[in-house]
Amino acid sequence: MRLVGILGGMGPEATVLLMRKVIALRAGGDDADHVPLLVHQNPQVPSRIAALIEGTGESPAQVLAEMARVLEAGGAEALAMPCNTAHAYGDAVRAAAQIPFLDMIALSTAALAAKGRRIGMLASPAVHRARVFHAAFAKAGLVMVLPDEAPLLDLIRTVKSGRTGAAEGAALTRLAEGLRAQGADHIAVACTELSLLTPHLPQGLPWTDTLDCLAGAIVQFSLTGDLHAASD
Amino acid sequence: MRLVGILGGMGPEATVLLMRKVIALRAGGDDADHVPLLVHQNPQVPSRIAALIEGTGESPAQVLAEMARVLEAGGAEALAMPCNTAHAYGDAVRAAAQIPFLDMIALSTAALAAKGRRIGMLASPAVHRARVFHAAFAKAGLVMVLPDEAPLLDLIRTVKSGRTGAAEGAALTRLAEGLRAQGADHIAVACTELSLLTPHLPQGLPWTDTLDCLAGAIVQFSLTGDLHAASD
Repeated sequence: MRLVGILGGMGPEATVLLMRKVIALRAGGDDADHVPLLVHQNPQVPSRIAALIEGTGESPAQVLAEMARVLEAGGAEALAMPCNTAHAYGDAVRAAAQIPFLDMIALSTAALAAKGRRIGMLASPAVHRARVFHAAFAKAGLVMVLPDEAPLLDLIRTVKSGRTGAAEGAALTRLAEGLRAQGADHIAVACTELSLLTPHLPQGLPWTDTLDCLAGAIVQFSLTGDLHAASD
Repeated sequence: MRLVGILGGMGPEATVLLMRKVIALRAGGDDADHVPLLVHQNPQVPSRIAALIEGTGESPAQVLAEMARVLEAGGAEALAMPCNTAHAYGDAVRAAAQIPFLDMIALSTAALAAKGRRIGMLASPAVHRARVFHAAFAKAGLVMVLPDEAPLLDLIRTVKSGRTGAAEGAALTRLAEGLRAQGADHIAVACTELSLLTPHLPQGLPWTDTLDCLAGAIVQFSLTGDLHAASD
């Protein structure tokens, strides 16, 4: 199996959640059936929000490029980054390494285009403001349907603080119903905090989690070397 | 903060559990407050049980040494290995790298010696057969109290298959009560599967989880550079 390098730590829980999804995709066998990863869990990557939204602070690009070089030198045969927002720096990652980059935005957009047309986006406002999905969606002919920002941010903050109970589930249900009312025919879950609440997405409104798209591509690449729509 | 290299994948879930414990020890702040890790999640390390117990198969020593070199070259300033059994190859890890090794066996033994004398061992039989704790316990004056092997192995296999309910909790309670009846005054949980069941350990019988000892040492080293009893 091929070793996949993970540009992680943004945040550290999202990286762990990706690792758990990769493990779950190979459950039921021996240790040796699991996919090998080299994980740079680097919570000190400069703030993507500060750089992209507030226009302050160090750019994450150089740190991400150095992480990519470390992972390639360590034997990784492809790279992946479990953070939607950080994909604003995907070009810096690509430029830093010779190995392919399993682009979560490209992978998720390809998966979404096969399933819907008007995509309700459950993502941090930073993802939209950095226009992370805009070019890929335009190319795929997908329409982006955005939720109310204030209740979405409230919910993300509440989940970050550790609460994932009935009230938070109900808040996610309301957000998703709002997206459906705006014409969304499919939901993109592009936020680790909201990934934890997907059982509360309403019946009859299908959804795709970008982290699942990435986990699937990692397993497929490790087992077969196949990249599909994943890479540049 | 100092980057800590993790020799992982034995099994992959244990590595993820260690990462979650390291995250939990720094909860409540920003991403940047979390400890940076470089994690070699390598489920293809040759079977420790085959090599140590059955005397067959490739030795894990060379693979672990190569992983240690990759982690050191990637910038790790110390190494840690979230697998009790694999510590039978601790010397190979130490020999492969210049950076210190946060030895889970030494760390756990130091913690246990501060709390008990007759230590009930909830560990895989492989840990005992490879005599992983024997020298450290002898030096610390600790007595090892071993459970019945058959029900312990049954329980580990059941938990590995994904069941961690009331029946499994009751099985752990019985095993721990058996150790207490044999005179144990403290329990060492030295098995990731059993770590998931610690809420079922009996009242009034204190316990220490070796993975918690390692997580604490990783955080301490990353923040302060302090090694205490951790290293060679």
